[in-house]
Amino acid sequence: MEAQWITALQQRIGKERVQTGTADRHSYSYDGSFGEFLPEAVVQVRSTAEVVAVMETANAFLVPVTPRGQGTCLSGGPLPVKGGIVLDMSQWPSSVDITPGDLTARVSPGTLTAAIHAAAEEHGLMYPPDPSSAHVSTIGGNLAENSGGPRGLKYGVTKDYVIGLEVVTPEGKIMQAGGSTIKNVTGFDLTKLIVGSEGVLGVITAATLKLIPKPPAVQTIMASFASMETAGEAISTTLTSGILPAKMEFIDQACALAVEAYQPSGLPTDAAAIVMIELDGNEESIQVEARQVSQIMKELGALEVIEPKTPEAAAAIWKARKMVSPAIAKIKPTKVSEDATVPRSQIPAMTARLADIREKYSVSLVVFGHAGDGNLHPNILCDKRDQEEMKRVELAVGEIFEAAIELGGTLSGEHGIGTMKSSFMEQELGAVGVDMMRRIKDAWDPNGIMNPGKIFAEPGQRLVLTDE
Amino acid sequence: MEAQWITALQQRIGKERVQTGTADRHSYSYDGSFGEFLPEAVVQVRSTAEVVAVMETANAFLVPVTPRGQGTCLSGGPLPVKGGIVLDMSQWPSSVDITPGDLTARVSPGTLTAAIHAAAEEHGLMYPPDPSSAHVSTIGGNLAENSGGPRGLKYGVTKDYVIGLEVVTPEGKIMQAGGSTIKNVTGFDLTKLIVGSEGVLGVITAATLKLIPKPPAVQTIMASFASMETAGEAISTTLTSGILPAKMEFIDQACALAVEAYQPSGLPTDAAAIVMIELDGNEESIQVEARQVSQIMKELGALEVIEPKTPEAAAAIWKARKMVSPAIAKIKPTKVSEDATVPRSQIPAMTARLADIREKYSVSLVVFGHAGDGNLHPNILCDKRDQEEMKRVELAVGEIFEAAIELGGTLSGEHGIGTMKSSFMEQELGAVGVDMMRRIKDAWDPNGIMNPGKIFAEPGQRLVLTDE
Repeated sequence: MEAQWITALQQRIGKERVQTGTADRHSYSYDGSFGEFLPEAVVQVRSTAEVVAVMETANAFLVPVTPRGQGTCLSGGPLPVKGGIVLDMSQWPSSVDITPGDLTARVSPGTLTAAIHAAAEEHGLMYPPDPSSAHVSTIGGNLAENSGGPRGLKYGVTKDYVIGLEVVTPEGKIMQAGGSTIKNVTGFDLTKLIVGSEGVLGVITAATLKLIPKPPAVQTIMASFASMETAGEAISTTLTSGILPAKMEFIDQACALAVEAYQPSGLPTDAAAIVMIELDGNEESIQVEARQVSQIMKELGALEVIEPKTPEAAAAIWKARKMVSPAIAKIKPTKVSEDATVPRSQIPAMTARLADIREKYSVSLVVFGHAGDGNLHPNILCDKRDQEEMKRVELAVGEIFEAAIELGGTLSGEHGIGTMKSSFMEQELGAVGVDMMRRIKDAWDPNGIMNPGKIFAEPGQRLVLTDE
Repeated sequence: MEAQWITALQQRIGKERVQTGTADRHSYSYDGSFGEFLPEAVVQVRSTAEVVAVMETANAFLVPVTPRGQGTCLSGGPLPVKGGIVLDMSQWPSSVDITPGDLTARVSPGTLTAAIHAAAEEHGLMYPPDPSSAHVSTIGGNLAENSGGPRGLKYGVTKDYVIGLEVVTPEGKIMQAGGSTIKNVTGFDLTKLIVGSEGVLGVITAATLKLIPKPPAVQTIMASFASMETAGEAISTTLTSGILPAKMEFIDQACALAVEAYQPSGLPTDAAAIVMIELDGNEESIQVEARQVSQIMKELGALEVIEPKTPEAAAAIWKARKMVSPAIAKIKPTKVSEDATVPRSQIPAMTARLADIREKYSVSLVVFGHAGDGNLHPNILCDKRDQEEMKRVELAVGEIFEAAIELGGTLSGEHGIGTMKSSFMEQELGAVGVDMMRRIKDAWDPNGIMNPGKIFAEPGQRLVLTDE
């Protein structure tokens, strides 16, 4: 016999979109991070009214609700760690409604981020946030996690482009946050509180995004270096020279080797580090800047500096960069992906700490990331069936977090806290910071049904990657 | 006999910085907005430990605390509307500590914003937010109110440049929010919740600000138009042409006449509207953009387009723009300054509504503002001793708010809600939005002592500008 709340949901949403079969539930038990948790039901909502129905029912029956877009999350946001309902937003009809005169777009939560990029470009506009998953992830998920991406260096992250939200609260009320204006200081900034709150404060059902004029020209530069240190120096010299590139990425030798093994892309495999830069602006200015950047790279000892002369050649470099994540995933069955972030000047120190951690725990640790804003992606490649190895990975991950915090950095630059980093929160924020966050959570979700088990650690909780 | 809490404060802070004399209290009874309220005591704090002492004492004795920088606020933020303590932050020693490699600055709350601009420039960097009051207002006040300014068009507002805060909570605990990294998604974004919360959630005692490379060159353009409509069209055509100016301001004829009467500055006084633009970037690109912008202005029927050829000539135009506020204040004894903001495309509609309101209530209403981002500053010049006139002003202000909301806009683009706009909050945000804000306030400040009487209206409260 179905639970009473499932019957209630089926009455309000319709039986075909309230799934309780084992296969369906298994399809919603994982995301792009670590761990599997089986929900009791999956509800595929397609409108704000349906989200209200789900939240009202869940709140009345005290059933946990975990919103989910396309499940590409790297920190466990859509994992139903306490069971209950997975609220599948991916079946919601896509819509991107652009008002060119306002430079804004109103979007539905299930819309793929790449569809927003494409729609903006049709009007000569740009939606800058560009997470690597943009072609498969929903804007709702990007909003919940405050996704970043390479262009974050110059243009900022998802939060910087959200001016209004419609949100269904944990108690099932429809709330408008922000509005349609670029500037808005009417009351507390609930928009920016909700973006990045990982689905624990409510369900985002619509968003108004800010667009910008699309820069007319771009120029890519790729430089390789014999050591991580010289690459770091070249990055920091560029950033203090008065030039702000749109993107400034780096990958280490292990990543380059993995990409070339996975799909040959012409990356140099003999260098310790490769730096990839994109300048944007008008034609005149980027040619001047490209000459300056190339000169900085050469003066600081680059092994090679490449300025692709065609859009295709430039696209090949950025495609190779996007391939890093799938390529390294082929090395071993399990990939533990982190995003510890440090102040820009601490990148060389952080890469040195990562090299020590790799050696100390004999783990297969590779590094790539958004060098320009200090946001590294140390990835540990392992096999979750190997308990002894996972114990070493567990210790290595803990030490990565500690290193980031010691260097004045943060646990997470763009993936979120989710399930794996919650026990480290107090170390970074102190007890007062965590307490003030929890007060907001408790005031908004008095029954604790909205995506429970995320961000806030339970007493005594610690990181566990083994089956213990 | 002094109240017990005053004695307690004098013991902890020292008698000389806990002022209770009538003259002292009167000096802290007003700000740049409307209304006068006498505090019971003024405490001049100079350290985080002293703020903790004040908040602990105030929380124990249930005494209201209102933080204050230089009192330039245009929405009543530093007004002690419920009496109690004014916490004067202006005597706190200034400090701007720049880490060039990280592109960040750590600042103390009493530092003048102009001092941060100057310190950043010494390193070839820029702190973009530029409220007109920058040379007399403190960064603490800018943070509390999320100040904007002309450069907001391209660079965003204060909130966009804050990456970390130290805050003393209403209960006297020291909280760290955010950190030192550009990207940070560790837990809720308390930094952006506190910036712009008008001092009702805690006292900001230190901030880490993001800086950017200073653009190497700037070019100013001034164009005058025979009607507000053509000026609006020129603005919107420029913004959809792929050019994003650093600043795009406009002033109406009444403002130009006031400036020329106050201090002759060479503004055209025969035009209905003047548009002032600043382009920045490298020399090559801004010359190209300047030609494009001039051509757009001319094609759309500008009476005159001026491109100043020297830095001094450009500075004179921006000085004239800054003079608008003091110049119009000379017209009549009282200035009611608003900042209703609409989606960019609604600027012509909003200026038409303002013209109707001016006529309907026979008020002396002038308009200037940040045209590029829809942030207008309608100012009503009046005499607060004239009760009949103030009644008309009261109705006109209410109708300005209604017009902004009807056009998809907001009550406040950069000045804040404070005392005068609180009764209109629910009209814009709905009951749910206001309720969710109030839950945060109540959870953080259970005794309601932190800057009470701001943002949230009391039952039945309405805008009153007369002595009724």
